[in-house]
Amino acid sequence: MSEDKKVSPDYLDAEVILGSDPVPTPVALPPDILRAAYMDMVVTDLEESKKFYADILGLVVTEENDNEVYLRSLEEFIHHNLILRKGDTAAIRAFGYRVRTPEDLEKAEEFYKELGCRVERVPAGTVAGMGEIVRVQDPLGFPYEFFYDVDHEKRLAWDYQLYTPGALVRLDHFNQVTPNVPRAVGYMEDLGFGVTEEIVDEDGTVYAAWVRRKPTVHDTAMTGGDGPRMHHIAFATHEKHNILAICDKLGALRLSDHIERGPGRHGVSNAFYLYLRDPDGHRVEIYTQDYYTGDPDNPKVSWDVHDNQRRDWWGTPVVPSWYRDASRVLDLDDNVQPLVGRTDESELEATIGADGFSYTRKDEDDSMPEWKLGEFKLGNQL
Amino acid sequence: MSEDKKVSPDYLDAEVILGSDPVPTPVALPPDILRAAYMDMVVTDLEESKKFYADILGLVVTEENDNEVYLRSLEEFIHHNLILRKGDTAAIRAFGYRVRTPEDLEKAEEFYKELGCRVERVPAGTVAGMGEIVRVQDPLGFPYEFFYDVDHEKRLAWDYQLYTPGALVRLDHFNQVTPNVPRAVGYMEDLGFGVTEEIVDEDGTVYAAWVRRKPTVHDTAMTGGDGPRMHHIAFATHEKHNILAICDKLGALRLSDHIERGPGRHGVSNAFYLYLRDPDGHRVEIYTQDYYTGDPDNPKVSWDVHDNQRRDWWGTPVVPSWYRDASRVLDLDDNVQPLVGRTDESELEATIGADGFSYTRKDEDDSMPEWKLGEFKLGNQL
Amino acid sequence: MSEDKKVSPDYLDAEVILGSDPVPTPVALPPDILRAAYMDMVVTDLEESKKFYADILGLVVTEENDNEVYLRSLEEFIHHNLILRKGDTAAIRAFGYRVRTPEDLEKAEEFYKELGCRVERVPAGTVAGMGEIVRVQDPLGFPYEFFYDVDHEKRLAWDYQLYTPGALVRLDHFNQVTPNVPRAVGYMEDLGFGVTEEIVDEDGTVYAAWVRRKPTVHDTAMTGGDGPRMHHIAFATHEKHNILAICDKLGALRLSDHIERGPGRHGVSNAFYLYLRDPDGHRVEIYTQDYYTGDPDNPKVSWDVHDNQRRDWWGTPVVPSWYRDASRVLDLDDNVQPLVGRTDESELEATIGADGFSYTRKDEDDSMPEWKLGEFKLGNQL
Amino acid sequence: MSEDKKVSPDYLDAEVILGSDPVPTPVALPPDILRAAYMDMVVTDLEESKKFYADILGLVVTEENDNEVYLRSLEEFIHHNLILRKGDTAAIRAFGYRVRTPEDLEKAEEFYKELGCRVERVPAGTVAGMGEIVRVQDPLGFPYEFFYDVDHEKRLAWDYQLYTPGALVRLDHFNQVTPNVPRAVGYMEDLGFGVTEEIVDEDGTVYAAWVRRKPTVHDTAMTGGDGPRMHHIAFATHEKHNILAICDKLGALRLSDHIERGPGRHGVSNAFYLYLRDPDGHRVEIYTQDYYTGDPDNPKVSWDVHDNQRRDWWGTPVVPSWYRDASRVLDLDDNVQPLVGRTDESELEATIGADGFSYTRKDEDDSMPEWKLGEFKLGNQL
Repeated sequence: MSEDKKVSPDYLDAEVILGSDPVPTPVALPPDILRAAYMDMVVTDLEESKKFYADILGLVVTEENDNEVYLRSLEEFIHHNLILRKGDTAAIRAFGYRVRTPEDLEKAEEFYKELGCRVERVPAGTVAGMGEIVRVQDPLGFPYEFFYDVDHEKRLAWDYQLYTPGALVRLDHFNQVTPNVPRAVGYMEDLGFGVTEEIVDEDGTVYAAWVRRKPTVHDTAMTGGDGPRMHHIAFATHEKHNILAICDKLGALRLSDHIERGPGRHGVSNAFYLYLRDPDGHRVEIYTQDYYTGDPDNPKVSWDVHDNQRRDWWGTPVVPSWYRDASRVLDLDDNVQPLVGRTDESELEATIGADGFSYTRKDEDDSMPEWKLGEFKLGNQL
Repeated sequence: MSEDKKVSPDYLDAEVILGSDPVPTPVALPPDILRAAYMDMVVTDLEESKKFYADILGLVVTEENDNEVYLRSLEEFIHHNLILRKGDTAAIRAFGYRVRTPEDLEKAEEFYKELGCRVERVPAGTVAGMGEIVRVQDPLGFPYEFFYDVDHEKRLAWDYQLYTPGALVRLDHFNQVTPNVPRAVGYMEDLGFGVTEEIVDEDGTVYAAWVRRKPTVHDTAMTGGDGPRMHHIAFATHEKHNILAICDKLGALRLSDHIERGPGRHGVSNAFYLYLRDPDGHRVEIYTQDYYTGDPDNPKVSWDVHDNQRRDWWGTPVVPSWYRDASRVLDLDDNVQPLVGRTDESELEATIGADGFSYTRKDEDDSMPEWKLGEFKLGNQL
Repeated sequence: MSEDKKVSPDYLDAEVILGSDPVPTPVALPPDILRAAYMDMVVTDLEESKKFYADILGLVVTEENDNEVYLRSLEEFIHHNLILRKGDTAAIRAFGYRVRTPEDLEKAEEFYKELGCRVERVPAGTVAGMGEIVRVQDPLGFPYEFFYDVDHEKRLAWDYQLYTPGALVRLDHFNQVTPNVPRAVGYMEDLGFGVTEEIVDEDGTVYAAWVRRKPTVHDTAMTGGDGPRMHHIAFATHEKHNILAICDKLGALRLSDHIERGPGRHGVSNAFYLYLRDPDGHRVEIYTQDYYTGDPDNPKVSWDVHDNQRRDWWGTPVVPSWYRDASRVLDLDDNVQPLVGRTDESELEATIGADGFSYTRKDEDDSMPEWKLGEFKLGNQL
Repeated sequence: MSEDKKVSPDYLDAEVILGSDPVPTPVALPPDILRAAYMDMVVTDLEESKKFYADILGLVVTEENDNEVYLRSLEEFIHHNLILRKGDTAAIRAFGYRVRTPEDLEKAEEFYKELGCRVERVPAGTVAGMGEIVRVQDPLGFPYEFFYDVDHEKRLAWDYQLYTPGALVRLDHFNQVTPNVPRAVGYMEDLGFGVTEEIVDEDGTVYAAWVRRKPTVHDTAMTGGDGPRMHHIAFATHEKHNILAICDKLGALRLSDHIERGPGRHGVSNAFYLYLRDPDGHRVEIYTQDYYTGDPDNPKVSWDVHDNQRRDWWGTPVVPSWYRDASRVLDLDDNVQPLVGRTDESELEATIGADGFSYTRKDEDDSMPEWKLGEFKLGNQL
């Protein structure tokens, strides 16, 4: 019955995903990236943000000072998965990736220099807990950081006395907004990432793609829209009830308006999800139970943008703010990056706009009883 | 922090809940009702409905013939919790309550005769598995049935080989739509029910009330609207993941448009919930984990109709169809009962209509950041 | 397949359960008991016990002083479910039952006076939070307390910010050790309790019986052994993972030796369970998901004492200490009650002693492969 | 409090783990192994075994004939994770590992030839669904298979209509019994595996070690004992309740004697576990929620063999059969491999034998109350 999500083998060729105006493929080999490791986030009220991430969500404070709070998840052994950094404008200062060896820093430097990107070396100790960092502004305008050396902290996996009902155990992935998804994916493939899932339409427009280094569905995703912007950062829980417990707690604290979307089951990734907005509006996903993708021939899953179960397997409408809002990112001088507009059709318009449509069953006739005609589904109450 | 849901002691007096035009209190004692026990439901396509309730939701078929299917939940030992009955018009034929003794049938008969209601005795064996039934059309227009004798079937609680991931273990409650909630509650109190929770406003308008015999939050609820209509029937699962599994399965079967609302956490009842629509549009709730209410001084909980967490503790908007749609009910001759319109304000209008509003935090100022101003909350995208 | 747990209708007659030397049935009507409500427990180190019940298990302190700590579960609205009372000898001072009306205190007094029991009236306010209490030493030697008036406290059901991963939401039941189970059951039936399940053998020996007022499997159980002693007090969680989380936390605190038995699935009651020992050795069960028993003809379930799945549905052996150990109880002068020995066969001996045996499948031949011959099952490694 | 599980940095040197009589390190590079992929298992009653793995555990039959059944887990896209193969003697015919490229088959061949091992090429199509296989008898006596080409099957992750309450979603790992654990680990490190956890004592004896390619705690483990034997194969579920549901179902089917150990929480790996025995006595683990280990400097965890929480975090005793029993393995001619005895101390003897001991808290004095002195813990009822 769910045959339509199966990708046909010949769908796997590159034509679909490669866009116009490609980022050139460097001759230099890319660094061997292990995983999405941390995000460096500017927040306007450090106290409020710490309360949100540490007191409410239960991330563990590794270290803090008047201007920064360093947080990690319970199963993490590196110094931090999230830096909250006090500033005037809420924005994203860096997406941090860990590489396999110290030598991969050289590779990162060469790779990006060949692309004409600005590259900086941040000496060890400049950022708390961190060895040397290679910091770049990438071809899509995102501030990426690469590092190997990092302080080890206690992995708190066994410290159940610290667990809350909604315990966050891992950083899972980032999600980035960029105008031209095929262009972004081509560049990420050059950087060594593999595509696991995507949302497309019958004309070849690509609305979003998920790319990975570690063998999960993604370390980051490229979401079509005006960019560069940061769509969300995602932390993993062990079980689905942990995610429900976070909602219950936000209700108890009368902070339920921080819940933007979900909880629900994703079509893409098959994971169970929840989207929150932090005190600055930065979006945080809580996520659990996607699948192993580590084989080189892992089947890519292509979703039709009109499939109403692609974003939520239960057909729950996506709220417009989820499509529209995202956090601005900084350049290497901490200035807000200007935006480039998306020219391809937007997913919001393709599915629930004036000419948009979604279906639950492909080729369904319209003889459905009235109550099925979707007032509570398909987003058309919007 | 969640102080506002606490009922003040002086709120418990009767003035609030008693409406105009009360149903007179009979001199006759009411029957001793044990619990909501079954619903008798007319469906237009018996095969489709059986597929929905038995194959998809996993209710167990006790007995069936060409015109009826009798279903029970896994922990039930009486013959059925649901009758699917083939007919031309989808409607509700009866709400069945079990009473403590055979003598309570006499009491039911006298109670309703004194109220001037039409009362019938259905001889034992007329309905499969059932002894004698007292059948009435109650003062609100609902077809109520009372019974004691019933065939015992195997309680399948230990038969885990029959459990599905979304196993339904008990019938939990009914929910009825009626124009005048205080009037309905007064009558139900005379019938021996106790109020556990209610939704009201500062002017004393009552939008809904929950009443119980067994010590849970309800055996039935009275929801304000044009009535008499049946809003939903609810089955219980053991855990929250069972409810999520039902959604996952409906997605897999490409039937996600049967999911009308949820899953979510109720404010009222504190239970975890999901609302489905069956092939005729009859609404079924899946419900778990409310609380014990069996003490006579169990504190009633009053919710402000403007509290955005009353219907969903996470603040997720209620879809309009949930307020609007409900199943028609039959009179004792199997004719569809005419409707009486609600004259009090509707909850839909009070909360998300032209003059309606909801709040997450009472007395919140309007200095919130823009992203909090509720595009994805409070129902105001509707 | 699990047919053998089904009780045949003619098993329901009273002969089996009524023992020799019955407690006479009073002419006086029994009080209308609502439910098991609290236990009054003497502990030798108040600080340690508070740490165990409040800090580790998460019960909420309603009130405390130098000699007593009053605790309640998260969904409770009465003042306490557990009193920790500092003393020299760890023992149980009272089993507290709530009755429906103030007048039921009179009934309790008359009922026990007719039985020749010592009865005392404890004036309101003597025990913190409590109105008047009728306190008796019952025919089995147990200190029972009956009360109606009690202070209301905030029901914390919605206060999810207070929930731990192992949140205890209700007091569920007591379990008492007494030498003659049929005699005890006869008395409890006179007191208005109904039997829901029992463990018996083919000779009519009764090893244990479960009796209830509220419509769950029990408010207390009678376990055969030297008595009077208190076997355990049980608190309920919402879900099974809550119980697992308590074990995980005890492991993290290096207190895993407080875990005596389980977690596992009971045969009797079908509930998921865990048994802990508190710092004085008092036994606490954590329990979830038994079934509704409120109908008067609720089918009693009789388990064969030799059925290896009766105590643990998965066949996990019961540790001997669980059969052997129990807490002494006090008389009304706070002296430890002397013990009366059990004369019927003990369950320990019947199942795993010299002549004892248990089976997984009745009438199984002995042609099983060697690995099935039970080294890790049936308790025969003991 | 759980500090004692923290490995000190200088513990990570090789002296501890390297044993006497090492397998020489080949000059040839090892194949790039992706993951444990399937087990080829000889069973004596194909019908019974299929019933166990397919009907009860819910693995999906990809293909079958009179002599073999090919099964896969729900999230798997390769042809099978388990082959049941009819034979006279229950044994293990192969441990299958997937490699990254077709060229890795050459590497495997050269690697093992240099070690003097017998190596065979199995042509594509010889085994259903499989391309070419390199089949070796490794230096420890185990039949290992390496492959790249394999038929793709539908990944059933989204097919929730096929899920049972105990759904198995991935093959997680193998576990092998071998006399000399350090020797085995040295060889596995040469093959490219990394050690994540180990059980040792203060004299340097290594009782078991966990090694991985994919970034989980293990693809296989080396358990000290007479070998070569197969200790268990492990499948993963999404959540802990899935594992409990398998126990419940085995109880309902009166097959609870297939449950050997657990469910419980491992100390090693921090995963939740259950051990079953199949109709031939082959051991199957059901496993969920270990942690990410993919960083090259992932901290190794060393457990003291006397730590009573190492094998079960809750201190539940390990049944002797779990230490003692394991499946024999076949050589490349399908003859049962002879055993080599373990000469180092066994974990069973070190912890619960005549001179063995275990502790919950290191350096605990013996002033514990009597009930804590461990009748129900530490395995000393054995």
